[in-house]
Amino acid sequence: MKIEAVDFFYLSLPEVLDIGDGSQDLLLVRLEAGDRLGWGECEASPLTSIASLVCPMSHSACKPVRASVLGQRLDDVTDISRISNLVRENSLDLLQADHTLSGIEIAMWDLLGRARDAPVYELLGYRRAYPKMPYASQLFGATAQETLQKARSVRDQGFAAAKFGWGPFGNGSVEQDADQVAAAREGLGEDAILLIDAGTVWREDVEAAGARLTVLQACATTWLEEPFYSGAHAAYRRLAAHSGAVKLAGGEGSHNSYMAKHMIDHAGISYVQIDAGRIGGIGSAKHVADYACARGVTYVNHTFTTHLALSASLQPYAGLEDHIICEYPVEPASLAVDVTREHLWPGQDGLIRLPEATGPGVTPDLEQATRYLLDVEIRVRGELLYSTPDLGDRV
Amino acid sequence: MKIEAVDFFYLSLPEVLDIGDGSQDLLLVRLEAGDRLGWGECEASPLTSIASLVCPMSHSACKPVRASVLGQRLDDVTDISRISNLVRENSLDLLQADHTLSGIEIAMWDLLGRARDAPVYELLGYRRAYPKMPYASQLFGATAQETLQKARSVRDQGFAAAKFGWGPFGNGSVEQDADQVAAAREGLGEDAILLIDAGTVWREDVEAAGARLTVLQACATTWLEEPFYSGAHAAYRRLAAHSGAVKLAGGEGSHNSYMAKHMIDHAGISYVQIDAGRIGGIGSAKHVADYACARGVTYVNHTFTTHLALSASLQPYAGLEDHIICEYPVEPASLAVDVTREHLWPGQDGLIRLPEATGPGVTPDLEQATRYLLDVEIRVRGELLYSTPDLGDRV
Repeated sequence: MKIEAVDFFYLSLPEVLDIGDGSQDLLLVRLEAGDRLGWGECEASPLTSIASLVCPMSHSACKPVRASVLGQRLDDVTDISRISNLVRENSLDLLQADHTLSGIEIAMWDLLGRARDAPVYELLGYRRAYPKMPYASQLFGATAQETLQKARSVRDQGFAAAKFGWGPFGNGSVEQDADQVAAAREGLGEDAILLIDAGTVWREDVEAAGARLTVLQACATTWLEEPFYSGAHAAYRRLAAHSGAVKLAGGEGSHNSYMAKHMIDHAGISYVQIDAGRIGGIGSAKHVADYACARGVTYVNHTFTTHLALSASLQPYAGLEDHIICEYPVEPASLAVDVTREHLWPGQDGLIRLPEATGPGVTPDLEQATRYLLDVEIRVRGELLYSTPDLGDRV
Repeated sequence: MKIEAVDFFYLSLPEVLDIGDGSQDLLLVRLEAGDRLGWGECEASPLTSIASLVCPMSHSACKPVRASVLGQRLDDVTDISRISNLVRENSLDLLQADHTLSGIEIAMWDLLGRARDAPVYELLGYRRAYPKMPYASQLFGATAQETLQKARSVRDQGFAAAKFGWGPFGNGSVEQDADQVAAAREGLGEDAILLIDAGTVWREDVEAAGARLTVLQACATTWLEEPFYSGAHAAYRRLAAHSGAVKLAGGEGSHNSYMAKHMIDHAGISYVQIDAGRIGGIGSAKHVADYACARGVTYVNHTFTTHLALSASLQPYAGLEDHIICEYPVEPASLAVDVTREHLWPGQDGLIRLPEATGPGVTPDLEQATRYLLDVEIRVRGELLYSTPDLGDRV
């Protein structure tokens, strides 16, 4: 089949709040090939990615992303990496291109999955998809008391693992942070897995992060996530050297597989967290999963938007039985839940299973998506380069 | 002073060709603070960077770049890094932000330089700016014969060093590449410095690059630049281990100082090439210069557009006397020459000197810039988020 159309749809809540909740808007991708459609999602600033899709060429290595996708043959798994390489080379100097490619790449797997009547994980070479244990991923409460309530609530919902992040954590005193972590542990109970996400708050200040290790260790925290900027490998390594039972996690900022591999090699992380909607798609994420496996590092998805993005982010390590934990947003904005027809709800046993369906197996609810769809227009020299396409009535 | 306006101007040739010439368009940045202006330039896809400047917020760590710049106090060098950090944190998940920040950061140095009546290199702590030896940076000819002519021409112009890159190099046979390199050497004569730029053409194929080492060594090539993708450190390292007198160069793809430092630490490069218009600006570039110095790696600018960008890229290592070589585009598009009032032409001795002026010391020619200025309009929900501002009559 031949890719004949690449369409982007910017969906958003009417009002976006200045909080760490990444599910307030999203960028839906639709590919068309013959009579088939494929859907994907970029974990990216929607307007910026739209601009990178349609921008005028700057030179031979700074072309709009669309130029390397439209008209390409897509008949096999190798075509997906071939087209991805084309994008990376033709848009080498277009920084946003990796985020933009990510949603397109996911949609290519959807197209190919539909053509082959196969789920993505099979196309990736996995024989089966193992169930994953979801950790309830959420923001810290504004106060320790609020965090305590949130922890109790997810425990009551049956989650055996939970992550708290962002919010006030790391910005106040060591004591305030200690209260927050202790509240999270108290609310979850002793036997649940507790994860803490610092959201790069300490930049590269190893001492600031180190000052929180005592409470993290006392509360049996499994991992401390993103204490530093993604690139601050030396800081990660120094902290990892004395973090004891508290392991480090990171990697969500990786926009190509090299960056994630460098973290595995040089940052002393024990968990590598990859968002298929950022790293260039499912194929790049799978490279990281293979690499992590070979080096004794546990692969984990990063996801904060829809269950289409969730499915896409689970596929790369679906066949890795021992890499069981998975990120699962439990307080997404209405948008992120409304806009897909299928959902990956936890089963009776509390575990998440990938759909036994073609592709990612999660498709948009067009009626709902239309409610959130924003009108966008981009003109250069008076020429209309982008205007929001029609979502139509086919999925 | 307080930053009261951030304006972007997309300049372009009427027709952009599908060649490796990065000077066919550019993104000019103007900051306004009180009665002062500051100018900078992003080495970036203009439309995509404009979108990242004005896009709606997605969440607390994915804000438009403008949000972290407008209204900020700028009274000291430390304010520049403070504002840059704000951008990086508030736009953590906006990939394009680093390219967008770069031009803004350069304009902040211009503002501060004007306020202090000091050149940037002084603000960076250098006592003086040493002259640099420009290498004539250009594309390979379509044929070896054409390359021979180009090499003779730059030699006749007085350049003691030249770089050839992109074009057909690396895509054809080993013999064709050998002819190209030999032609370049022949045209330059025996005593000139010859540099070769592969433009990432071999992705991570060490054998393909290795097959070209014989001719590169025979022709006394000083460096082989970007044989692989920026992130392919292992491939770089393997090639460096048997490249002999031909040293490896790379780093232009770095969009933060960490990436460049990782290349220094792990890719076996002997020359690190940094574009201040991409890496986050002059301050980030200076961090890399310091790091390179301490590790025996030679710092080199990367520049392919105007002399404003050239001056900005030279400032970070202006005070490093031994790091003498500098990239100097010799076949820029008319645009890149026309739009500045000052130029860094080689002196009688063939060397380049930074202007003894405030800031970068290169300012736009507004009349010329207006000729190349493109009308851009971006609307979301009917609201006009960006329309090309007036260039006015002040520099």
